[in-house]
Amino acid sequence: MSADQRVEGCGGSNGASTALPPLTPRTIGGKPSEAPGDEYQDVAPPPYSMESAIGLSVPLYQPHAPAPGTVIDPDMVEDHVSFLRTVRAFHDYKRQALAAREMRCTNFRKLQDQHRDLLCIDLDRILEKYLECIDVNGAFFDAICEASEELFDSYWPEGTTVLMKEVPPPTPLDMNKVFSTLRQFVRDWSAEGVAERDCVYKPILDTLDHCFPNRGERENVRVLIPGAGLCRLSVELALRGFFAQANEFSYHMLIAGHYIQNHVFESYQHKIYPYSDSTCNLVNRADQFAEVQIPDLCASEAIDALRDKGLSFGQLSMVAGDFTEVYAKPHQHKTWSVVATCFFIDTAHNIIEYLVIIYNLLVPGGYWVNVGPLLYHFADSADDMSIELSLGEVLTVAQRIGFVLNGPPSFIDTTYTNNQRSMKQLVYRCAFFVLQRPLVDKQTGQTGGSVEAEGT
Amino acid sequence: MSADQRVEGCGGSNGASTALPPLTPRTIGGKPSEAPGDEYQDVAPPPYSMESAIGLSVPLYQPHAPAPGTVIDPDMVEDHVSFLRTVRAFHDYKRQALAAREMRCTNFRKLQDQHRDLLCIDLDRILEKYLECIDVNGAFFDAICEASEELFDSYWPEGTTVLMKEVPPPTPLDMNKVFSTLRQFVRDWSAEGVAERDCVYKPILDTLDHCFPNRGERENVRVLIPGAGLCRLSVELALRGFFAQANEFSYHMLIAGHYIQNHVFESYQHKIYPYSDSTCNLVNRADQFAEVQIPDLCASEAIDALRDKGLSFGQLSMVAGDFTEVYAKPHQHKTWSVVATCFFIDTAHNIIEYLVIIYNLLVPGGYWVNVGPLLYHFADSADDMSIELSLGEVLTVAQRIGFVLNGPPSFIDTTYTNNQRSMKQLVYRCAFFVLQRPLVDKQTGQTGGSVEAEGT
Repeated sequence: MSADQRVEGCGGSNGASTALPPLTPRTIGGKPSEAPGDEYQDVAPPPYSMESAIGLSVPLYQPHAPAPGTVIDPDMVEDHVSFLRTVRAFHDYKRQALAAREMRCTNFRKLQDQHRDLLCIDLDRILEKYLECIDVNGAFFDAICEASEELFDSYWPEGTTVLMKEVPPPTPLDMNKVFSTLRQFVRDWSAEGVAERDCVYKPILDTLDHCFPNRGERENVRVLIPGAGLCRLSVELALRGFFAQANEFSYHMLIAGHYIQNHVFESYQHKIYPYSDSTCNLVNRADQFAEVQIPDLCASEAIDALRDKGLSFGQLSMVAGDFTEVYAKPHQHKTWSVVATCFFIDTAHNIIEYLVIIYNLLVPGGYWVNVGPLLYHFADSADDMSIELSLGEVLTVAQRIGFVLNGPPSFIDTTYTNNQRSMKQLVYRCAFFVLQRPLVDKQTGQTGGSVEAEGT
Repeated sequence: MSADQRVEGCGGSNGASTALPPLTPRTIGGKPSEAPGDEYQDVAPPPYSMESAIGLSVPLYQPHAPAPGTVIDPDMVEDHVSFLRTVRAFHDYKRQALAAREMRCTNFRKLQDQHRDLLCIDLDRILEKYLECIDVNGAFFDAICEASEELFDSYWPEGTTVLMKEVPPPTPLDMNKVFSTLRQFVRDWSAEGVAERDCVYKPILDTLDHCFPNRGERENVRVLIPGAGLCRLSVELALRGFFAQANEFSYHMLIAGHYIQNHVFESYQHKIYPYSDSTCNLVNRADQFAEVQIPDLCASEAIDALRDKGLSFGQLSMVAGDFTEVYAKPHQHKTWSVVATCFFIDTAHNIIEYLVIIYNLLVPGGYWVNVGPLLYHFADSADDMSIELSLGEVLTVAQRIGFVLNGPPSFIDTTYTNNQRSMKQLVYRCAFFVLQRPLVDKQTGQTGGSVEAEGT
């Protein structure tokens, strides 16, 4: 399957329904869930060497088989396996979380009587609450798994030759990402996430408000958001009237993002316990069981509210796949008014390639807005290409490509999927900068020529 | 070997030499360098799957063999292997750092010409500086390795049956701790570390200044510092006239701490490049090559300066070994005026045991001063006992043991071995509290009875 074949679901001002139309992304070659990724998240993995005695038998769906004679590309089979392994990882949350809880119970039971007397906490009550949290989170993930079936069908309508029983068990990294997905929901879709979102999304939204003050014209302002995660930023852009396209590579994010956007119909429909699996750095025990309600904004409700004000929703679409595969194509050149990258550029194997692609995507006069650190995802992987530039070097390369920098970058201190109650706070000093592709390219002297050398 | 057999090197006011007398710790059973430990440090490991083509052949010492007929306890042999594996890890720094550098060179060489042109940085100059940093750090570690020989001899004067060639290669964790040891030197022994030290050591020092204002009497105020690391806090206490005893379990810290205290004779004698192996989150390339001079305070010079002022150095000793093994002994009960724990209590398998031991160590009226988070080191290890209490629970247990809490804990935000130039900052919200053992124990009604149940 080539990148050009992807299906983009668009909706909003031209749609009749008040509910957000389903986003129908489609994967493009590669192995999304095998990338190290998710480096920003700092969730301690539960133990993996422990066998859980708890048997869970919720059935997983079996995707439909291809019609006789249908040829399934072997690369696509690999995608199917990755997708289904991610579903299995979400499904395995409960087993894994219960095993971690059981390990902690066992340790408490090992305490000698005198120590247990000194502890004088109601251990049974704590362990019961812990169990309740896992149950609630588990049910939430089961709903996500169920909704993923239609996503699989939309990606691969011809079905698959992969049998669910052939799907390998999730890796520790797969499971780690499941636990951190709970915190991603907090970041993107809860009131508790406002502080983090204000730090990084607001500067981007303010920049675009400033550059494109006329709301009526925004439907033609095409904004691309690579590494869109759970898509709050792209939804916010569409709510402000822009043509927003989200791009994401991780099946964890695609599957979870599909659920929150297409299967949640009112604000605060779900409660989750995003910190229940972490027992370190608690000030109070209650912090472990902090309840977070999601979403704080339901897109379909927000669209209704817009309509009541006589305003229209912009356009919103989602493209699944590797940024360098999807957006390096010549037909994408000079088709985007803005590329907005938030905690994205350090996902590159070769950041120079990213910069060239972004430049070529922009129309002459278009903007690249960036917020994020430089925690290169592949820096420590011996098996992966990785080019780690300093911020100064990134900006130098950008200018050499042709970007114009208006003033030095500023720095924004912010956490990422952080538990604000914790005694451990991972703070990123994010670089915020706005670069512009000039109306006339310096190098070619032409109006909007393309820079060569997009491939690694 | 039992804990009671340890040798404690004491020095200072009763010593004739201006140089700090050698500290002669001695290990007590257990496998120091195998503990997960060092959880506070956040150093990305260099690649381990890559074979380095660079052969380094600096010879390592071979500890002397026992005299004929000497019986070496098998537990002690395990200690010897752990110690020597740690020495080997320090020695392997250069090989490992060069391999990481080589991997990065290779990646840069993979860039196609157009990307290399766009990069327009003087790559050769950067890689040469990178090499120079590794050379300097490597020479520093070689000096540490050389000095460790006398430490081995002081721990085990009877020699060893272990041959250096039988020592297994360092684990990735061993190597990770070597890289983070560079940052520990910055934290404890550089001017750059002042900010971190002011955050956590200063509240402890101020508390002791307040509780024991009369300097002339401080020689009899026995202060124990478990988890003393590279010993800056214990040296500072002795400089203020206290009887300070450092306790440490990690061979990395013991070997490195031995060097900085006993083989460095003037301020700023060494320069190191503590961040040269990290290529992520750089604002400027120069940040990777930031030079740090150590020590900012040379203990022997500081003792001279004290003498010039007519003031005496207190007492300073070091005990190597597991806190729960060394300090639970009855002869230690009620012998300490103060126990000062800084980033220590979460190293416990069972924090309740730590609290009981600390209580019993204190004389009636004695103080426990604590600063640190609750990042329990064994929380995610399926093979280790771990009891993870919240701060509230820790303080509840402490009061139930008999401690008196004067006011609520305060919180101090601070980093730990952090590169202050980096775009990534791991901040701990440390709990700072002072607890007192009452003059009359509540439970027993006696003057300073012991709480039972020290063992796990």
